[in-house]
Amino acid sequence: MKILVLNCGSSSLKFALIELPTYKVLTSGNEERVGIADPFITFRKPDGKKEERHLDIPNHTRGVEIILDILKEEKFVHSFDEIDAIGHRLVHGAERFAESVRITPEVIAKLHECAQLAPLHNPANILGIEAVTKVLPNTPQVGIFDTAFHQTMPEHAYMYALPYAFYEKYRIRRYGFHGTSHDFVSHRGAEIAGIDLGNSRIVTAHIGSGASMAAILNGKSIDTSMGLTPSEGLIMGTRAGDIDSGVLDFLLTKNDFDPEFIAPYLKKAEPGKTHLDQADLTHLLTKKSGISGIGTQGSDMRDIAKAAGEGSHRDALAIAMHAYRIKKYVGAYAAALGGIDLLVFTAGVGENRPPMRTDVCSGLEFLGIKLDETLNAQAVGGKSMVISATDSRVKVVVVATDEEYMIAKDTYEILTK
Amino acid sequence: MKILVLNCGSSSLKFALIELPTYKVLTSGNEERVGIADPFITFRKPDGKKEERHLDIPNHTRGVEIILDILKEEKFVHSFDEIDAIGHRLVHGAERFAESVRITPEVIAKLHECAQLAPLHNPANILGIEAVTKVLPNTPQVGIFDTAFHQTMPEHAYMYALPYAFYEKYRIRRYGFHGTSHDFVSHRGAEIAGIDLGNSRIVTAHIGSGASMAAILNGKSIDTSMGLTPSEGLIMGTRAGDIDSGVLDFLLTKNDFDPEFIAPYLKKAEPGKTHLDQADLTHLLTKKSGISGIGTQGSDMRDIAKAAGEGSHRDALAIAMHAYRIKKYVGAYAAALGGIDLLVFTAGVGENRPPMRTDVCSGLEFLGIKLDETLNAQAVGGKSMVISATDSRVKVVVVATDEEYMIAKDTYEILTK
Repeated sequence: MKILVLNCGSSSLKFALIELPTYKVLTSGNEERVGIADPFITFRKPDGKKEERHLDIPNHTRGVEIILDILKEEKFVHSFDEIDAIGHRLVHGAERFAESVRITPEVIAKLHECAQLAPLHNPANILGIEAVTKVLPNTPQVGIFDTAFHQTMPEHAYMYALPYAFYEKYRIRRYGFHGTSHDFVSHRGAEIAGIDLGNSRIVTAHIGSGASMAAILNGKSIDTSMGLTPSEGLIMGTRAGDIDSGVLDFLLTKNDFDPEFIAPYLKKAEPGKTHLDQADLTHLLTKKSGISGIGTQGSDMRDIAKAAGEGSHRDALAIAMHAYRIKKYVGAYAAALGGIDLLVFTAGVGENRPPMRTDVCSGLEFLGIKLDETLNAQAVGGKSMVISATDSRVKVVVVATDEEYMIAKDTYEILTK
Repeated sequence: MKILVLNCGSSSLKFALIELPTYKVLTSGNEERVGIADPFITFRKPDGKKEERHLDIPNHTRGVEIILDILKEEKFVHSFDEIDAIGHRLVHGAERFAESVRITPEVIAKLHECAQLAPLHNPANILGIEAVTKVLPNTPQVGIFDTAFHQTMPEHAYMYALPYAFYEKYRIRRYGFHGTSHDFVSHRGAEIAGIDLGNSRIVTAHIGSGASMAAILNGKSIDTSMGLTPSEGLIMGTRAGDIDSGVLDFLLTKNDFDPEFIAPYLKKAEPGKTHLDQADLTHLLTKKSGISGIGTQGSDMRDIAKAAGEGSHRDALAIAMHAYRIKKYVGAYAAALGGIDLLVFTAGVGENRPPMRTDVCSGLEFLGIKLDETLNAQAVGGKSMVISATDSRVKVVVVATDEEYMIAKDTYEILTK
């Protein structure tokens, strides 16, 4: 069975063509700048080489058509009938979706309802579904939600201490994201560590430019650091993560900012502006903060680490803050779980930065965490392996996350069950 | 030496007359509704009984005069010369004050600068200083800051992941509050537990209607849950504490609230209003949230616990959320400290609710925390005592906090050194 995995953003379409149940990735690629200027597509040719093509991609429907044409042209499929299903990565399933589902008109209607909680993401996901429906009307589609894995959180973990009516009427609560990744790496991590998932206390740290952690008890998520939105929790590439609501009040009510000072942080430049609107503040918190706000080298940890190594104080600070926040969540989630058996690092930074893992784990010996620095140094470039010392009570592992695999697997299971 | 301790809010003046170095509280009391309708003062008579008097208190200067007149009338002093100093509780010392100071015109100027960071509190504190200066121009005054104890936090703990320039230019960072209490109870707690403060890892939990926690390494604060403002961190009587900044964005940008739904949360009622202004949101987060938002019985934990005991789901949830947040901070701060030797509970709820302490400590056996439930049940009504089991590796203590003592002590020490 060949499954096309799609991850549609507002101006991007990521895709992978995967053969199941063997789980062979036939090709993968990415369309960028869809519907805006200078769109292009990159993808892997049959020989594994990467190709980039600049061509007109005015909307998601055309984007899907272009992907399909390339799949045929490069002979990954001979006819579109060979694509047995489409698996969509969907961002926000709110409380309506606790697991993956076959997409039907009813599901699309519910997705529209969830869009109020994720105005940046769900509408783009729906565009992707609609595009596929136009181009391949008879091919089954399945939706895999970023939030679904966390629907097992208990009420005391997912509620905010707002008036209860805001939950009853508007469903404002913690949902969490990166669910397919936390799910995948907890399974794979337990396997690698030789731990019985059904009887385990696992903390997973998905650390990329977006980043979140989860507390997983006996295989089920009981808490996670992202909330209603992906803004909460860890310090990320450009997102502040946890911050005093009083800081936001301070920033929104201050009306005498130096206009030159504030200009670089505005969503749209406005000469002479001395305050931040709400849209400016969200822009500041999600696009101008995090690692890129503290450090001097943008949001890529490799550049930050290089500058820190050359003596830059702000970059060293960014690295220290980033690791310290993760360390505190390890402690908090160990408390939530009543202890910890396994700590899993994954995603771009989690899989590739041994010094980050060292910083997080240093001082956690009291929890029974002890890294083997030789193994830690080896675990880069997408390896999945144990990095804790043999006498570490808590196993620490690095797992290469594979969200496409989870999406393809769920799609396959729903179609074959 | 007799020291008058003053804690001036925008419409209140709390006071205590304390004899040092014996530390005898001669009297204490409270003026409320100063400058607004129906002001009154309550205070302890020489026989210990409480008296309430309704009289005109149009401003802080008159408030100070009334306190002094009562001190003389009730023969706590025979002349104002007997008051050797005034110790002021001051809320926000920003980075300018890492310790208590003798108040001078320069100090007042700096306080005005700090007021931008604490617009609700510092101006009232300054009013109190100015009132005393008018009435007792020759009596020395000392300022004790709620933030000072936390000035030892390392940079990676006090910085938010905003663009660095917001710290450089506006000093936006974590300051923390309840410093005199965290300082006092860590000293007293170490004493009671027989632990050497200079070589200890202590987590203090000041749990009242306002609430914060601190991580204290060798006697120095290295992290604390309140931030730039007292809104961050734990779930409090009416404050939400930690919350996704994305929730605030959602609430501020939503413009189709049901007007009847939203009316009770507005700062000022406005018929037909379908959105929240920033001032409404801050009102919602600081006055309508927390325990009072989740539960059904207002902000007093005793009422909430009673309702929960009678089967109210929302009140049971409020209790569970409140304890869970504290538990997660215990874990996070243990991680920050590299382990934990002593856990201290203090303040109204911390000193008086054994079930809350049980909820927080349950599941923390992996940290070496084990309560003695008989001792825990005994520790109410202002007792200071160990409540952990004899075989608990981590000592757990309840300490009756005494901020007036700390203010009087610092005032005494500054005047006699």
